[in-house]
Parts: sequence; structure tokens; C-alpha cells
Amino acid sequence: MSKQFDVLVIGGGPGGYIAAIRASQLGFSAACAESNPYADPKGEPRLGGTCLNVGCIPSKALLHTSHLFEEANHSFEAQGIKVGKATIDVPTMKARKDGVVNQLTGGIKMLLKKNKVTFLAGHGSFVGKEGDYWKVKVGAEEVLAKQVIVATGSKARHLPNVPVDQKIVMDNEGALNQESVPKKLAIIGAGVIGLEMGSVWRRVGSEVTVLEAMPEFLSVADVDVAKEALKLFTKQGLNIQVGVKIGDIKATKKAVSIAYTDKDGKEQKLDADRLIVSIGRVPNTDGLNAEGVGLKLDARGFVEVDGHCATNLPGVWAIGDVVRGPMLAHKAHEEGVMVAELMAGQAGHCDFNTIPFVIYTSPEIAWVGKTEQQLKAEGVEYKAGKVPFLANGRALGMGDPSGFVKMLACKKTDRILGVHIIGANASEIIAEAVVAMEFGGASEDLARICHAHPTLSETVHEAALACDKRTLNF
Amino acid sequence: MSKQFDVLVIGGGPGGYIAAIRASQLGFSAACAESNPYADPKGEPRLGGTCLNVGCIPSKALLHTSHLFEEANHSFEAQGIKVGKATIDVPTMKARKDGVVNQLTGGIKMLLKKNKVTFLAGHGSFVGKEGDYWKVKVGAEEVLAKQVIVATGSKARHLPNVPVDQKIVMDNEGALNQESVPKKLAIIGAGVIGLEMGSVWRRVGSEVTVLEAMPEFLSVADVDVAKEALKLFTKQGLNIQVGVKIGDIKATKKAVSIAYTDKDGKEQKLDADRLIVSIGRVPNTDGLNAEGVGLKLDARGFVEVDGHCATNLPGVWAIGDVVRGPMLAHKAHEEGVMVAELMAGQAGHCDFNTIPFVIYTSPEIAWVGKTEQQLKAEGVEYKAGKVPFLANGRALGMGDPSGFVKMLACKKTDRILGVHIIGANASEIIAEAVVAMEFGGASEDLARICHAHPTLSETVHEAALACDKRTLNF
Repeated sequence: MSKQFDVLVIGGGPGGYIAAIRASQLGFSAACAESNPYADPKGEPRLGGTCLNVGCIPSKALLHTSHLFEEANHSFEAQGIKVGKATIDVPTMKARKDGVVNQLTGGIKMLLKKNKVTFLAGHGSFVGKEGDYWKVKVGAEEVLAKQVIVATGSKARHLPNVPVDQKIVMDNEGALNQESVPKKLAIIGAGVIGLEMGSVWRRVGSEVTVLEAMPEFLSVADVDVAKEALKLFTKQGLNIQVGVKIGDIKATKKAVSIAYTDKDGKEQKLDADRLIVSIGRVPNTDGLNAEGVGLKLDARGFVEVDGHCATNLPGVWAIGDVVRGPMLAHKAHEEGVMVAELMAGQAGHCDFNTIPFVIYTSPEIAWVGKTEQQLKAEGVEYKAGKVPFLANGRALGMGDPSGFVKMLACKKTDRILGVHIIGANASEIIAEAVVAMEFGGASEDLARICHAHPTLSETVHEAALACDKRTLNF
Repeated sequence: MSKQFDVLVIGGGPGGYIAAIRASQLGFSAACAESNPYADPKGEPRLGGTCLNVGCIPSKALLHTSHLFEEANHSFEAQGIKVGKATIDVPTMKARKDGVVNQLTGGIKMLLKKNKVTFLAGHGSFVGKEGDYWKVKVGAEEVLAKQVIVATGSKARHLPNVPVDQKIVMDNEGALNQESVPKKLAIIGAGVIGLEMGSVWRRVGSEVTVLEAMPEFLSVADVDVAKEALKLFTKQGLNIQVGVKIGDIKATKKAVSIAYTDKDGKEQKLDADRLIVSIGRVPNTDGLNAEGVGLKLDARGFVEVDGHCATNLPGVWAIGDVVRGPMLAHKAHEEGVMVAELMAGQAGHCDFNTIPFVIYTSPEIAWVGKTEQQLKAEGVEYKAGKVPFLANGRALGMGDPSGFVKMLACKKTDRILGVHIIGANASEIIAEAVVAMEFGGASEDLARICHAHPTLSETVHEAALACDKRTLNF
């Protein structure tokens, strides 16, 4: 007889494993199926999805090491720390990164066990209805579940006719696992992945060129943040070209050549040792048999869901990268919790306007809420407060005073509409802005809340004061 | 004729200069008097008080450098960063620190000018009343002001009969300005200054012994935080002894010998190259002529004030280290703003329960609200959620997963009563807890607010979930 569960989650990434755990905490019998190729020492697929295996976590490990490497070569001398010229041993850097990934992915298996979630190794594919149950094939076996959550994630979009061998032409996976520093590294796509990977490999010695098709750099970010980022990254040595049109790409076993038209319409050729293709990600719906059971996908291939992640099929939900919205681990997490709580009759809810975005370059970029250009486009009257970290004692003490905090608040009500940070530790500093916005806070609220001295967070405080034109330290 | 102002602030530290600027912003003519011995290139006293000149800012600059030095010698190899053995050039480390201090103290003079605050060089001393005005001598000149804010700060407490020469026997000033690494460094007092300075000099090579008279380590912090801190600092190599009784101290021009009784009642002797005395700070009221005008001081020498920083004299206020409450720059800042706004007829207010505390050791320690031992003593029923950074992907990526977040919430209402963090970047992470508490938030609020992944702040989120026994990643 087939295994039966109240809830089957297809996919064990940061949306799926969280949904399964929360469902189990709420009294459901829950299973989580995973089938990725990242085998653990037992030969089982690893949990954690793209995020833990080939995304957020390994990239942060490499960013940390490469940041320290950069400090050693560029800031140590002025601080009185004497070391010889630092060199990088890429296999060791990679091995530490792999150790972090192993520790965390192994930890998730323990979390499933602790929370009584059944782990199923195998690809999930809808078979059909059987009474009250959905029948899903997981690898070789058939499983019955009253409710199914599709959390199959996404994969890197590739260029047509440019095979990715993960050695010369790479996506995020290859980019994280290079065994040596490429002399010349080409990157197509100046999004989060392109910028983070470009930063890592530039710091350890690559000559990096980033080609971006969009006419504006980082148009998803606030316009001031994007401008500052372009200035800083260029100063660091990233050669960023926007408005390009990619032409023929010729890859051999040793190098790659990229023909492109630059923003002025001139034909150019970029020769590089390796190429990272980071032009976005596509939802994973292969082999799900969506058509077979009538699960509706949208025009771009995402599973179609409403604001509560319900699909067109009763008892079938979908969360994370496989549905609309930003492809962020914590957005998937939020949706996973919401769906589990909705299944239990609770009031699950997800506010997409207060989901923070982070780019882990140096300085980091983080924001929450609306950008200035969005407010303008929507015709919202706002006031802005912008304060540089150059006026912040902690930033100077850390020797890293680049960037700023920019706060946008409603002109009429003073309610905070957006907070945009480019600067050291922006990823952590954004948290208070998210909390303030979730409480419907005004810029005056943050201006009146005590901020520890000396911290980078004080610049959030000053930006709040700046909304009322009464800065105290700037 | 004497200069006349609406408001005279005596003292240009983080309470005083802020109060003067805010008063001026609110339409008062304001002056700020300062007389410290830290002369700037023009020979004028520097603004910024203890905090900027010999406190928070220079210590953070040294902590940053010494932290990187420690990374170079202890974490680089495992990450694949090859450098020879790092050595420290103390004069260069110190010069960078001085540069940061110069930049910031100079910046405050510009802030006063920008905000139309008159800077007066000279020691402020009350003379008496003259009509509606207070007459105050500032250096050689007499100044009239309708309202006076005493913001004279504090100075290091010294041991009786142990002269501080800042070379062998030092307080915070000497500790920050050592020209070489002492082989053996003794520290009396395991408070914030003792621990921060002990950390700096241990990391760059000193053998550090910290002697503390109190029977418990860091009793101001939450009991679990104190326990973890003692464990971690001891593991790092700080020799911390609590419950000691200091006996005779003999200092020569080259060394110092400290006799003490240890916690078991045994007589001990500690020979060291240098000694830092960090046994607390005393309010600066010397030469203020408090008695002459009847300004009331309390039994410990602090200017006596009410919750709004009003003294017993009409039109005289006092803020910062010279009054009751924690000696924290941001507490002084809050009081400065409050007093200026009260003078302007606004509703100035200062909530001492939401003023965060930070200790910049490694890992950092930060908290806000009540400790567990305080709640117990007050008979408050609470629930606690405690989650280690070992379960945090960012902490592992940074190679620094020590410590935890502990949240305390009211058992009945779930309102957050305290948040206690020991871990990397605790100083920044605490900000969201302060904001949540200012909004009267519950642990469930933080549990339901999206936290960016991967960030250290996610452990605050998990600690909130732990209050309800439903952690997702631990």
C-alpha cells in the first residue's frame, strides 16, 4: 500500500523544508521529497535546495574569505598589520565553503527528524487524484497526500546554443566551484549572482568584465543606490558595461570569446578564460506532470498561484521560486509558513512589500519597500532622508565608510515607505527598517528610537532625522 | 558686555553637542563650552568628549584592527588565505586610530557651525543668577544664559594611592595609547572598558590577566550571556579572576606588581609590565561651583535630576554621565534631545528601558530591556527563547558561530521584555529588538516578520519562534 500523508512537500529547499516542518508542528503528518544531484556522504540528495547547496550559503562563505583576502592586501598596512603579500589557495577556500554547506544541509535532515517529517528521496511527479488524496510518484514509489505543496524552486537560465560545461562556461554552480582563479573572467548579467560572483573572483585576482543587456545598472534597486553601487564597483575594478547586445559566443576547452555590441552600437569582442552566465533563473516544473493533472502554469512557466499560494487545483499549493515574486530564500520561507498555517485553518499571510532584498557585495546592498522611482511612477508624494556612512564613527573605525542610508516616507502621514542601504553590513541593518515598516512606523518613530553608539545603525537613525531635515550628526 | 545666549551647554561630548545643536534647531541661540586637554591642530579643545577622544571611537578602531590581526593569525590558513605570520606595528595602528578620532572631532566643530551653535573654549563654572539669566564663567569670560545644560561627563575612577602615569599604570586614556604591546598586561575591573582593552591587547600578543572584585562575572548582563562570555573569553586566552580583593600595588617606571587575595582567600601576586585600572567612572563636577549656586548633587557626586533631567535649580538641566543611569553616549544623546525639546515646550521623553547596551568584545555583547535575573527578582512571569548562532548559515559562512540570541517575553501578554545577544555583530542586530520593544511588540511579532537570508538577524527571528517553542531552523 502506498504511503499516506496529510501533506507532501515536493522540494526540500528553504521554502519546502520549512513548510514541511511547520505543517508537522501544526499536527499534520508530513513528508518532504527531494531529488537534487548534490549527494551527501550517504548518497542521498541534500536538503536546502539551491540556497544552501549552490546559492546563498556557499556564496557568502566565498565572499567572506575573499573579503578578508582583500583586507589583507589593501587595508592591513595602513592599520599596522604586517603580512607579506597574501596569496589565495583556491582549493582550500572551496573546501571550507563545502564544509559550511555540509554542516548546514546535514543539519536540515536532523531538523526534519526532530520535527517528525518523513524524508523521501526522489523526484516528485503528479499521477492524479485517488479519492481524497493526490497520488504523487516520488522516485519509484507512489505516495498519497491530502495536500501537496510544490516547492521545486528554480534553475539558472542558460543562453540558447551556449552549453554550460561548468568549467569554461558556468552558471552559479560552476562559478562557486572554480578550482583556480581565472585570469580573465567574463560575466553576462549584472544581477545579484553576477555581482556577487564578480566580487569574489575580482578580489582574489581575476580581471572581471560584466556585460549587462539592460540599459540601466541594477534597475531593481533604488536609483541612488544603483548609481553609488556602479561608482563603487567600478572603482574596485569591476568593468561593468550596460546596454550591450550579446552576439556569438565561442567556447573551447580552454577559453571563451564573446562577441557583443556595446551601448554605442560598436561591435566588440571579449576574450576570457571563463564565462559566468547569470541572466536570471527559470522555475523548475520539468517532470512534475503539471499538464497531466491540469496544474496551471503561467506564460513564463511559473505555477500560477493567488496571494495565498493556492493553485488552481484543490489541495495543491505552490511556494518559492516556482511561483511569482522575488526569488529569495526568505520569501519562500514566509510562503511555506503561510501555507502550512492556512492548511491548519490559521490566518496565514505574506506581506510582499516588507520582504527585504540583499546583495552581498562589498559594500552590501539591502532594501525594503518602495524605491524612489517606484514612488514617482505611482505618483506618491514622499520625503527623502539620505545620510552617508562617512558621518558614522563605526564605519570610520572599520575603515569602510562608503555608501549611505536613504529613507523614503509618505509626505502626508510620515509612514515609512522604503529604506535603501548601501554600506557595510547593510544586510543586518535593514532588519530594523523591516520591523518598523511591519508596525506601520513613521520616520519620526525611528528618529525617536535610541540607537546604540557607535553602530552603523545610527545612520538609519540619522536618515530618519533627515526626513524631517533635522540631522544631528550630518 | 557679556555674551548672552538662550541656552548654554557646559560640555561638548555626545550629550552636550547634540543638546546644543537640537536647541539651536528649535530656535534658541545656543553655545557649547568645552575645556578638555585634547587639543586639536588649532590648539582648541576637541569636541566629542570621552566618547570620541578616549572612549567608544578610538577603542572601536583598535578593536577592528586587532580583530583583523587575530583573523590573519588564526582563521586565514583554514580559508586558503596565505600570509606569513602577521606582526603588529603599534604606532601605525595607533596613528590610524588617531586619524579616525581627528576626522570625527573636527566634524563636530563643523556641525556646530552648520547649526549656528557658538563654540566656547574654556571650563564652565557657575557664578550665579543675574536677572533672568544664569551667569557662567567660561574660561576667562563671563557668559549669560537663560538656560544651562550641564553635560560635563565623567572621568575614570582611580585607585587610592595608585597614581596613574598613563605609561605603567593607565586608565582608558593610556590603555588606548600604548606605543608597544606589553608582554604581561594586568587589568583591574572586568567591565566594558576592561574587557574591550583586554581583548585588543591580548589579540596583538599580550598575556592578559583581568582581576574583578565582584563575585560574579559581568553581573550587569543576562546570566546566560555572562556565563557564555566568560567561557569564550577564557578560551580566547583572557585570564579572568572574579571575587578578588586588591591589595598593595607597587609600580616602578618599568613594571607593576599587584598583590591580591583570590576568591578562595589565598594571597596572590601578579607581576605585569603594565596595568589598566578600569574600575568605573566618576561624574565630572570639579570646578562647576555646584555648591556656590546650590546645585544639588547626590551622595555619589552625580548632579541630581528628575526623569526629565531637570535639576533643583530653575533653568538648569543636567544630562549624560554626570547624572544617574548608564554611562552610554547614546543615553546622553537621548537626554540632550529630550531637554532641548522640553525647553521648546515639546513633549521630550526618554525611555531608559529601551536603551541598548553594547560591549565590543569578540563576539560582541548587546542587550535591551530586562535580564532574566531581573525578571525573576521582580517576580514577573516570562517565557524565554534561546537559539545559538551555530544554527545560523551566515555565522557559519563568517566562520564565527559562537554565542546566541535570548529573548524574554511576558508569559501572559507575550510582550518582549528583553533581548540578549552574544555573537558577531550583536551591536547592529540589537537595533531591531529596540524598535520592536519601542512599538510594544510581542515575540510573535518578531516571529512573523520576514528576516533576510542569510543574515545573523535570522537568529533573532528563531529566538522569537523559540518563545513559542516552534523553532524552524533549530
